[in-house]
This record gives sequence, structure tokens and C-alpha cells, in this order.
Amino acid sequence: MRISKNEVRAKLIKTALGQIEADLVIKNAQILNVFTDEIISGDVAVQSGWVAGVGVYTKAKKTIDAGGMYLVPGFINAHCHVESSISSPKYYSAAELRHGVTTIIADPHELANVAGAEGIRYLLNSLKDMQIDCYVQAASCVPATAYETSGAVLDADALAKLLQEPGVIGLGEMMNYKGILDCDSDILDKLSAAQGHIIDGHAPGLMGRELSGYAAAGIHTDHESVLFDEALEKIRAGIAVLIREGSTAKNLSEIVSGLVKHNIKTELIAFCSDDKHWAEIYREGTVRSNIQKAIALGLKPETAYAMGTLNAARIYRLWDIGAIAPGYRADMVLISDFEKATVEQVFKDGIAQDKEHMPPEQKQKTLKNTVNLPPIDVSTFALPTCLNGEYPVIKTVAGQIITQKGSIKPQDVSHAIESGKLCKLAVIERHKKTGNVGVALLEGYGIRNGAVASTMAHDSHNLIIAGDNDADMVKAAEEIKRIHGGFLLVQGGEVRASLPLPIYGLMTESPPSEFLTAHEKLLGLLYEAGVSHDIDPLLTLSFLALPVIPEIRLTDKGVFDVLSSKFID
Amino acid sequence: MRISKNEVRAKLIKTALGQIEADLVIKNAQILNVFTDEIISGDVAVQSGWVAGVGVYTKAKKTIDAGGMYLVPGFINAHCHVESSISSPKYYSAAELRHGVTTIIADPHELANVAGAEGIRYLLNSLKDMQIDCYVQAASCVPATAYETSGAVLDADALAKLLQEPGVIGLGEMMNYKGILDCDSDILDKLSAAQGHIIDGHAPGLMGRELSGYAAAGIHTDHESVLFDEALEKIRAGIAVLIREGSTAKNLSEIVSGLVKHNIKTELIAFCSDDKHWAEIYREGTVRSNIQKAIALGLKPETAYAMGTLNAARIYRLWDIGAIAPGYRADMVLISDFEKATVEQVFKDGIAQDKEHMPPEQKQKTLKNTVNLPPIDVSTFALPTCLNGEYPVIKTVAGQIITQKGSIKPQDVSHAIESGKLCKLAVIERHKKTGNVGVALLEGYGIRNGAVASTMAHDSHNLIIAGDNDADMVKAAEEIKRIHGGFLLVQGGEVRASLPLPIYGLMTESPPSEFLTAHEKLLGLLYEAGVSHDIDPLLTLSFLALPVIPEIRLTDKGVFDVLSSKFID
Repeated sequence: MRISKNEVRAKLIKTALGQIEADLVIKNAQILNVFTDEIISGDVAVQSGWVAGVGVYTKAKKTIDAGGMYLVPGFINAHCHVESSISSPKYYSAAELRHGVTTIIADPHELANVAGAEGIRYLLNSLKDMQIDCYVQAASCVPATAYETSGAVLDADALAKLLQEPGVIGLGEMMNYKGILDCDSDILDKLSAAQGHIIDGHAPGLMGRELSGYAAAGIHTDHESVLFDEALEKIRAGIAVLIREGSTAKNLSEIVSGLVKHNIKTELIAFCSDDKHWAEIYREGTVRSNIQKAIALGLKPETAYAMGTLNAARIYRLWDIGAIAPGYRADMVLISDFEKATVEQVFKDGIAQDKEHMPPEQKQKTLKNTVNLPPIDVSTFALPTCLNGEYPVIKTVAGQIITQKGSIKPQDVSHAIESGKLCKLAVIERHKKTGNVGVALLEGYGIRNGAVASTMAHDSHNLIIAGDNDADMVKAAEEIKRIHGGFLLVQGGEVRASLPLPIYGLMTESPPSEFLTAHEKLLGLLYEAGVSHDIDPLLTLSFLALPVIPEIRLTDKGVFDVLSSKFID
Repeated sequence: MRISKNEVRAKLIKTALGQIEADLVIKNAQILNVFTDEIISGDVAVQSGWVAGVGVYTKAKKTIDAGGMYLVPGFINAHCHVESSISSPKYYSAAELRHGVTTIIADPHELANVAGAEGIRYLLNSLKDMQIDCYVQAASCVPATAYETSGAVLDADALAKLLQEPGVIGLGEMMNYKGILDCDSDILDKLSAAQGHIIDGHAPGLMGRELSGYAAAGIHTDHESVLFDEALEKIRAGIAVLIREGSTAKNLSEIVSGLVKHNIKTELIAFCSDDKHWAEIYREGTVRSNIQKAIALGLKPETAYAMGTLNAARIYRLWDIGAIAPGYRADMVLISDFEKATVEQVFKDGIAQDKEHMPPEQKQKTLKNTVNLPPIDVSTFALPTCLNGEYPVIKTVAGQIITQKGSIKPQDVSHAIESGKLCKLAVIERHKKTGNVGVALLEGYGIRNGAVASTMAHDSHNLIIAGDNDADMVKAAEEIKRIHGGFLLVQGGEVRASLPLPIYGLMTESPPSEFLTAHEKLLGLLYEAGVSHDIDPLLTLSFLALPVIPEIRLTDKGVFDVLSSKFID
């Protein structure tokens, strides 16, 4: 998208000088200047997708009267996983655009864990279907840990190759901070491969000397800060803080309140959604709602907008977006209520977008079948032999994705399951047909007379099934295989509802109207089937396999104690 | 200087964690954090030239107690011409280091105008002799204009090649703003060749639509703002403002006062010296004295320091300098009086420097003789035939480098010269022996019974001679040829004093003690010889040939009217 041709450059210069017609002039706007924090009345002249001039302009093929509304730069979502929306990039893009986001920085970490470089290229190939710009961070931790079996491995050489591809700008979140602090050579090789590129971090709670070590290794960003003090320490260490407000992890209120209270410089702060459901993005947006919330918390509006625009652009070294100024991409948003960030109109590349437009459904593409299961029968779900007198129990925590560790004597298991206190949880390796299966006991989930299955199971995205009877768990696995991945509920041997995710078992190309209905129906039936209202039935399930979040998890290799980094016999 | 080896990275991480000894720990410092504008008490651990950790550190091969003094990042001079110091890069570096500058962005525009890419490579080859880091901007305007004969031409292809060389980071000041606004294809080719690099501007007084056009062309910086409103408009257009405080052009007071009054965001503002004499740099520094002046004008000290450090680094996309944080280069300055920016100790790459150290004199290198003159006699200095009834007169202006246009009838010339009101000015092409000579009349300079000569004559650096008699002007040219360029004064056929500048006729490799003495002696004699005390005899002379500064100039091609861009018959 760079200005690389003299012809375009000359047209911009001539438009700026008023010598030739602009493609578009937006007149009578209150233009936010993010370089100076000023709001300036004037017109913006657009040429060939770029802002040519800001001032007084009349010569134009098309003129839009802003009627005194605010014109701000297009929003930039500094870190997101498109996969978390379960929608295809095309529909994801439509939901973001609706609320003024014109650029996202995407880390296709889930796609990469299933399909490696091919998964990342799926996103790169989708860029043409997206209405917004998408810059890709090459997923750094594939697999996320050594304690699970992922669909692919991306080593330093593979990452170096990906970093050469157009659209890839840096290295995705380096979650393995222990690996960095231990100076694991594989990890340091990855950092060296990405030298000169922006490298995302992921270091929840890291402070003090460990944070210094992490920063010294060359990490540039982090989106995991929960507390203000944590965010402040990261900024002090030169690590940009991407304030995350996702569907589950919500850190904005805490961090912004601290910024307001302590009046901290915000150059190194931007907004991101990390993981956010499509329906929520569609309803409230990502960066837009963050700006609104931040202003409501007392942040100076101009500062909040800069965090959602210029700051993100500078952090990611994207030099021609994030501001309304000559030579910048004409990505702009017309806002009626400045403090509420009410989006009236979105301009992408200088063209007014129909923000209610949904891309037309296309013929479903060839399924990318990545569900490759071993033979499954009831014996698959047998608990392992109890070696230490007690079975470990994974306990869900209301409203959170952390878990707690419990235990139960073998002789009490049957009754606990029958009474509905516990159910079984299984993780079946689904990429390479290794036959790896982890089986454990789960408390707090609540499924009765059935089984829930998902091929979205962070980060390796094996098949995860929770159920209170082996027969329904077998049926669930069979059905997952048939639909090439997705979410579903089986009860009494019948598939009650399902949401197929045939794109790598993670995403659907169906239009939102369709998959949202299926999702809603499934959720309703899951709660009916006894799943606790304290948790999100599918989201909680999908995180139960993630061996980096405390306290206890299940992978295809067994029950894992996160705090001691050891499997539990 | 990047961290590219796992071994170094691992050492940094281990030092940060306190697992291994730091090379140096600076204890008990008040550390300025430019990311947050905080001053934090603590220690800095240095490893292999990098900051490994900021916090509490004890394990060290060497410990320095800061005794509660302030520790700030090494200063960055965002734009300078080393040539203006007339010293070699080695001694220039020593003067800058003395006052805390650890990095300069240099535009070897003068060297390039004399010797093209070879001149730029002279600076690149000198980097090894410099104690500070120097990043080079490839001179964009060689020649500066079509109205003069320079020693070399750098076209878009030559610049593209230079931009591939290590140490070259962008395109030097694009002074030809008219060429940009006229969409000259040669100029646009140069901008395209530098796409993706930082491109310096030079646009004195440019505002409104013309400024939009200049910014839209892709210009990133400007150091020519004189008025606050002008600086503000440039920042609004996304052009970084490098506040200049040189030997003659002093813009800090005006711009900083405006910043203080209007409380403008300063991310896009840095400090530079542009052209500053060696003795002044040695006496007061560049960035250091700017910080002191800015604070005295009411700028928040933390903001002033950020302008002298982080802001410049970010503007020039230098990611590992400008802050004291893990993974940043250990370039630091110990300051006793924060508001006065009193430098007590300078650390470059983590090593305490002897700031009073002057590099030892080395055997004078082979002269780079670039003085290539045609045969010269008194006829060389004959005024051209008067075609319009009057001769144009170039009038100097007290304390400024602008000139004013006057005129005189041919019959009055002899008397005006005899009375000392006027003298002659000649510019003789000295690169290619073309035989081009421009001769004109000069008012306000004041030389009596003699001639002053200089091979530093912006920007083509031809031989410029001012004198009131042709015989001394001939002698001056002969002596310039003999010493291979420099400054000198001839009176009554005798060379009264000279300062040879054998490096391209611009610089000397002599130690400062030597060339400063020669310079002082020469200046004294020049004033004695009648040169007005309202001007700098050598500096004013050197600018009389620069056809981009209003109102009237002399090049080797004739008398030039800057405002109408035309030669005057």
C-alpha cells in the first residue's frame, strides 16, 4: 500500500496544492490531529486512497459534508486472533469495519498450531477478501509447550521464511517466557530470526528482574497486563502495553484508571481485543468500545483516540496509518459523539464504506479436513490406573479461565459422576493420529446425560470432550470426525446440536447469521444439559487443554500441573 | 550494534536475572525513564555494552556509585553536518561526546557536493575513528540547484546504491521543495528510491497547501522552522520538527516558548544543531545546551530530555537507543544538576568515557586535493558587461544569512569600491576546471586593501573570493590552490593568515588546538582588514553562493535572484 510510483505521488502533490480534483473532499469536519492532540476545523482532500491535504479544499469529484462531526483516523486493533471469532477473516473484517477498525494486527496462532505455515498462509490468502488491512505476526510458539501434541512445529528457520512473506511484519506473542528466561537455544534462535522485526510478548504478571530479562531478550509488546502496576513496569522496561478488552479477559478498567490517576505518558500504549467473539465485535466493536470506556474512566479523549490509532501504528512501525495527515492512508472514521466514539461513517482507502454490509456468502470452499482420529470406543475414555491413591481433579472457577486442583479417591469416582459433581474430560490428539489420549476428571462443568466436544482447544487444538458417559463421548468423537471439526452436544446417543468448524477445526466460512444461530442454539442446549451458568460452556472447555494457565490442565499427554510444569501420574 | 547472537542475548538475560556478573553496575542513581517521564531510584546493570536490567543489582565486575545523581539516556543530535565544524569526524565526535551526545544523525551534504558518493564514504570510513555512533543520511540534493556547478551529481540510482550501504539510514534533507511541488521527475525518483527509509526535509517557511504537498510527497522531518506556528503546522502534517540551535540559526527559544504556552504534544519533536562550530560544540555541547535552554524556558525537564533522546531515536527508527531500559544500548549520561543538564560522566556502550580526552593526532593523511582551478589573472575578476543600465548589488544583512538586492550604476562602481562601500565578489568553479566564474558587487562586507577566499561556499563549495582589488584576489586564488583549499586573507600581495582545509576543501585533520588558533588569528585579521563586525567574515562569505536562500546570490554561473529563480543579466 506504499506510495511507490511517481504518478501517484505527483497526483497527491497536485491535489494538495489544489491544482487537480481530489477523488473525495470531506468538508466541514472537526479533524482530530493525533500528532498535536488538537481538533481542527477543516476539509480533508483524498486522492488515490491517500490523504493529500488537510485545510480548505473544494475541487473534488465527490464531496461529503461532515456537518461538523468529528473525523478521526481509522482504528487499529493492535493484537487479535481472528480464529477466536470462529468466523472467516471475511466476516471478521466486516464486524471490525462496522465500528471503525481499518487495520488489525493478527496473530494466527491457532491456525498455526493446527496447520503450521499453511495455516498462516490461509490467513494471508484471505487478506484479499477482507475490507480492512491485516498485518500478520508469525506465530512464535508452535507448539505452545512441549507438554502437548500440536498439528505442526514452526522452528526458527520456518519463522525466518515466513518473515520474508508480504504481509508478515513480525513475530507473534512469545508466550514461552520461561524458555526465554532459561535461555533455551530454540527460543533464542527464534528471537534472532526475528531480529529487526517487531516481537510480541505474552508475560502475564511478569515483573522485576524477570521482566528485565524478558525485555532484554528483545520483546517489544505485551497484552497480558491485568494490574496497572504490572502495565506500568512493562512500559518502564520499554515494552509497549496493548490494553486488552476481549470477551473474557478485560483489563481496560484497571489499567486506564491507573493511567488517569498517575498521569502517565501514553506513547507506548495501545488497545487490543486479543480474543473476542464475533457477535460482540459486531455489537460494540473492539477499539471503538475501548476508546469509549477509557474516556468514561476519565482519560482525555484525544489520548484515548491516539491509543486506538497513532500509538498502535508507531508500535508496529506502520508509518502511513494512524493519523489524518498528508501522505497517510485515507482510513478515517466520522464520529458524532466524540466521548462515546459513535461511529457514523467509515472511510477505508478514501472510500466511504457501507458499514452494515455483510459480504455475500460464497460457495463453501473445499473443507480443510484436519480431524485425523484414531479408532475410538468406550475404552478410549477409561481413566488411567490410579498410582498415587487419588485422582487429580480439574476444577473450573466461576467467570475465569484459571482452574484449581482438586483430588478424589478412586472408589468415590463413580458416585461423583452419577451425582453430577464430576464428569470426564478427554483430550484426543487429532492431527497426526498418534493415538494419544488424556483422560481426567472435571469438576464444576455440569454436563448431564451427555457429552460436549470441541476441536478448538487451546493451543494445540486437539479434540476435547467433556461428558458423563462414555457412550455419548464416543458418539461425540464420531460426529466431530464426520463434520471435520467444530462444537457439538450429544445426549442419549443423539447429536442434539452442532456448529461445524471445517476450516482447520477452528473457523467457519458460513455467514454470521447462520453460525450465530447455531452457536446460540448449542449454548442454550448446553445450559439445559446442566452446564453451569457460571461459565461459558464452549470457551471454558476450549481452555481446559492450555498448559500455560494455572493451575491444572489436561493435554493429549495427560494431566498437567502448570505451576510445577509436571505431569501428574 | 544489534543483538544478533544468542550468546549475547543469553548473557543479557542472565545478567538481568542476577545470575551472572554485570560488566558494570551503576548504583544509587536517579534514573530518568523516558517512556513514563518518571525518575526512579535504582541501579543499572550493563552487560556487553547493553543495559541488561534496571532495579537492584550488585553482582558486577565494576561498580560505580552515582551518589544520587541523575542518569539519563545518551543524547542524540538529530541532524548535523559534521563539515560545518571544519574538524575531522574524529575530533567532531570528541566535542559532542564531551557533552553527552552518544549518537548523531549526520548529513554529509557538503562532502557529497564536492565528491559525491566518495565524499559520503569518507564519512562512513571515519565512523571507526569516532567515539560516538553516527548514522548517515544520503545527501539528496547534489547539486543543490541547477544554478551552480557542484563537484558531483547524485541521482536516484546513486542514492539507491548508497541506501544499501551499512550506516546509511535514509535520505538527507530534501531542500529542493520547489522541485517536489513542481513534481520534477528527478526529484520524485529520488523519493521513490528512498521509499521505506526516513526522508529529511528542509522547507523554511513552508505552510498551508504547499506544506501539505511537501508532506504528501513523503517527507518525514524538517529542521528549518523559525516560528512556532510554522513548527506547529509541520507537526500537524506529521512532519517531525527538529528544533535547530546552531552557530547562526537559533530557533529554540521561539519554538519552545510556543510549546510551553500551548502545551503541545512533543512526540514528534527533537533537537539538532544543523551547522555548529567546533569550538561552540566543545564549549557548550549541542543537545545538552538545548535541553538546558528548553528547561529554562519552562519546558518540563522530562519532556526536554525526551526530545534530546527517545524522540530522536523514534523519529529516525533507531529502536535500541534513546532510553535506559533492558535491551537498549548502554549509552548514558550522569547529570548533577538536572535542570542545567550538567554532564558529569558519559557512558558509551557501557564504558565510562574520559570526556576531556582528545584523540591523538595522527600523521596527516594524503591530501584529498579537490581544488582544480583554471588559469587565473586579473581579467578573471572583471565585472561582466552591464546590460540593463545597472549592476545588481548583493547586500549582507547584519546577523543573518539572508541577503538583500541593491543596484548601482556602472559609473559609480569605482568610487564605491574605493570608498569601501562595495567590494567585488567572485565564485570560481573549482571542481572540474570548467572555467566558470561569476563576478558581482558586494555591499556590507567591508574588506579593505585585500581579499578573503574560501573553498567552503555552500552548497557547491566552489572557490569564493571577496576583495577590493583584483591583484590580491588573484594571489588569494593562487594560494588556495597551493594549500588545496581552506580559508585565507591576502593583503598587499601577501598571505596574512590561512587555515588550510585539505579534506575536500572543507575540513582539516589537524587537532582543534591548531585549527582553532589559526581560525582565531584569521578572524582577528579579517576584522582588522575592515570586515564588518555585524557579520561572521567566513560564515557569511560561505553562504553568499547558496542560491536557495533569499534574496540574491552569486554562483559560478552568475548573479542569481532567488525569489524569481532567475539569473540577473
